[in-house]
Amino acid sequence: MNLENYFSDNQAQLLEEFMSFLRFPSVSSEPKHHSDVTNCCEWLVSYLADTGLKVERWETPGHPTVFAESKTYDPSKPTVLIYNHYDVQPVDPLELWDSGPFAPVLRDGEIYARGAQDNKGQCFYVLTAIKALCKSGVSLPINLKLIIEGEEEIGSPNLPQLLKERADRLKADHLLVVDLGIHALSKPAVTLGVRGIVTMSITLTGSNRDLHSGSHGGVVYNPNHALVELLAKLRDSKGRIAVPGFYDQVAELSAAELARIGFDFDPETYYHLFAAQPTGGEQGFTPFQSAWVRPTLEINGVSGGYAGEGFKTVIPAKATAKLSCRLVPDQDPIKTASLITAFLEQHCPPGIAIQTEIHPGVGRALRSQVSGPAVQAVARAYTEVVKTPCSFILEGASIPIIPELSHISGAEVVLMGYGLPDDNIHAPNEHFGVDRLEMGFKTIVKSLQLIGNTKGSDIKGSGVTLRN
Amino acid sequence: MNLENYFSDNQAQLLEEFMSFLRFPSVSSEPKHHSDVTNCCEWLVSYLADTGLKVERWETPGHPTVFAESKTYDPSKPTVLIYNHYDVQPVDPLELWDSGPFAPVLRDGEIYARGAQDNKGQCFYVLTAIKALCKSGVSLPINLKLIIEGEEEIGSPNLPQLLKERADRLKADHLLVVDLGIHALSKPAVTLGVRGIVTMSITLTGSNRDLHSGSHGGVVYNPNHALVELLAKLRDSKGRIAVPGFYDQVAELSAAELARIGFDFDPETYYHLFAAQPTGGEQGFTPFQSAWVRPTLEINGVSGGYAGEGFKTVIPAKATAKLSCRLVPDQDPIKTASLITAFLEQHCPPGIAIQTEIHPGVGRALRSQVSGPAVQAVARAYTEVVKTPCSFILEGASIPIIPELSHISGAEVVLMGYGLPDDNIHAPNEHFGVDRLEMGFKTIVKSLQLIGNTKGSDIKGSGVTLRN
Repeated sequence: MNLENYFSDNQAQLLEEFMSFLRFPSVSSEPKHHSDVTNCCEWLVSYLADTGLKVERWETPGHPTVFAESKTYDPSKPTVLIYNHYDVQPVDPLELWDSGPFAPVLRDGEIYARGAQDNKGQCFYVLTAIKALCKSGVSLPINLKLIIEGEEEIGSPNLPQLLKERADRLKADHLLVVDLGIHALSKPAVTLGVRGIVTMSITLTGSNRDLHSGSHGGVVYNPNHALVELLAKLRDSKGRIAVPGFYDQVAELSAAELARIGFDFDPETYYHLFAAQPTGGEQGFTPFQSAWVRPTLEINGVSGGYAGEGFKTVIPAKATAKLSCRLVPDQDPIKTASLITAFLEQHCPPGIAIQTEIHPGVGRALRSQVSGPAVQAVARAYTEVVKTPCSFILEGASIPIIPELSHISGAEVVLMGYGLPDDNIHAPNEHFGVDRLEMGFKTIVKSLQLIGNTKGSDIKGSGVTLRN
Repeated sequence: MNLENYFSDNQAQLLEEFMSFLRFPSVSSEPKHHSDVTNCCEWLVSYLADTGLKVERWETPGHPTVFAESKTYDPSKPTVLIYNHYDVQPVDPLELWDSGPFAPVLRDGEIYARGAQDNKGQCFYVLTAIKALCKSGVSLPINLKLIIEGEEEIGSPNLPQLLKERADRLKADHLLVVDLGIHALSKPAVTLGVRGIVTMSITLTGSNRDLHSGSHGGVVYNPNHALVELLAKLRDSKGRIAVPGFYDQVAELSAAELARIGFDFDPETYYHLFAAQPTGGEQGFTPFQSAWVRPTLEINGVSGGYAGEGFKTVIPAKATAKLSCRLVPDQDPIKTASLITAFLEQHCPPGIAIQTEIHPGVGRALRSQVSGPAVQAVARAYTEVVKTPCSFILEGASIPIIPELSHISGAEVVLMGYGLPDDNIHAPNEHFGVDRLEMGFKTIVKSLQLIGNTKGSDIKGSGVTLRN
């Protein structure tokens, strides 16, 4: 068996399998999809069993986690733990999809479906790499462990407890988190950190029912007005969060640390992709500085009254908002959310009742060292597969469970993946390329081989170019 | 036939007929209900033909208007035109209805359905009064005309043109607009004015697709942030609209005019009904002053991003809002909306595109004279039916077409009805009482008789108590 060509030799069958994986509507945030999530989990268990790994389904009060590991353990080899998730985001607005979110189609080399990239696509090339390595007959140079969770998109509410209970099973030397991206296929990069996250819901109530805006307009305090007034107070005119204490725990990076990171931002490419301008950050910071090393407070949803077709002259009983903060070292998620809650309660106008809720699934920010052996091995794998020197970036998004998993496993973390900025993750028409499935496959195979062959040694000087 | 007891003698059959009227989902704002609106219109045409009136269906580019009149015209009698509408508001949030909005049920003397009060209930007692008068065999003391439109809840976009075309058919001495309410069954009142209205939609666009709030948070300007910032700027901390020029056309009432109106507001009753406090108006004005003689700018709807169950870490491509202004004499609707549009465009942040739309169906405010003969006749009818002295109030809601209809018909306008504050119009569980159907029936019969018997004379001193 030719390991290098395994993907291309078996592409038709592998794509069939990938489509099956994508057809499960494993939306973890929507209770109606509970059995779809479970069925997707069962598919994974079956798929992994077929690779020759020992597979377990770990139950939680929510959706189950899949755990798999090599059938034998060799203490002379390093242990690599790989993290993925099989749950996906909701699909609305459904009307903007060109094809069904759970009816995957291949168009011009790209597969379109919810989860095609985030994270089923990235999970699937890991699966194919493991399958190929296991079936190649050659003894793996590492001990392999795999954890694939079903609640990432809702902030992994049950995984921390599970990790504590199964801590002994999760010990590893290196942890590959294959849920990240790069800026372009021509710019391979290892991600040295992600931001933390905390999410909240706010409900403002002005009356016990919707009221006619003619008869009651000028009498009651419209919850929509209270909502916009309160939310507008959260940021000042320079894009800085106006909540007292919000920045107190922010650890500033040194000039040397900043110099290691590729902050280059191309507004033209960005506009071409998204028809958007980089006007959303704090004054005094570049777009990627704002997205990577500064915290945010975003309004992810507002809803109140009638916003459908036509017009309804209503003063709604309630108005709601969903907020999230992206956090940087050393911000504490709960502390940050509590500051915001106190600020909103303090400014809530008379006649309006405010209710706030911090959602589960909070997570701190994470940073890796550029000198770590697995970071270096993966950078070399990228360089060889893409045939372009690998660089180092950061990511503004969050994988809340990773700091926890890193702590429990004791492993060095490498954040990696083949996501691209225009994959439409969390949006209609999400897609992932067949070419990237193959590159991902090769990068995982190569990384595991390199890590296995360099245990205890430093692979610096491997040809990887560090910025600056 | 006993006219006085006609309603109670035929109650079972009349309620059956009313239920049939309510079962039509005649939601004028939703294209999917187009044929339901038309079917409702046909039911009315058939019902009115049965009373003995000459009935016509007047087509418009939208929903048809029903017109009916006495088969003979007697120039020695005054002509009374009655206005109602048969279209209704949308029903969402549907989950808050205790029974289907178009499956009317009678519970504890109240009929629950969309339109039970606004305006099918008030229309129906007019129909029963006309039916009884026509079937009584006694010659009517008036020439009767009836206009029932199908687009009131969307601001009567096509009626102005229709009124112009049919102006000669609509000439009348008095116009009864039976779409109003009173504060309590123990407080009968003629309404001396309604506010005008103009409604708008605003759409803010930041990108060509929804974006991940982790990767893009801090880069793009979140349209939800732009929305709350822009909308918050519309009002100052004292509840005053901050749009320059907004109050320039407001005609202040004299102390003598204000003294004629019953502005009494009982916060305890209001709280009991709506669990709401009167904190929404401008500083320096009482609740009913704010609702009746001051203009408002209300946010009737906001929508952007994900506000459903769970959480979605999205920066939406667009955020939208629906705004309405209630206007007082002598504010011009389009001028007012244009001021708001200019203000919003001026303050729109960089990176956000703004699109505004003024909806059709604008209308100026209307005021009647307390000394008008039909105002006095209706006040006396109220006093006799309710057995309580009738007073005079204003109303904050709007019936945009009435100033137009008043002008075309040349008639004295009387705003009347039996709506109550807790009827839940424009909201879930709308209802209307069987007792009020009967009182409405009697009030219409009595009013038409009094107007018919007092042509050209002044019926002041009829026992009606004027406030102050």
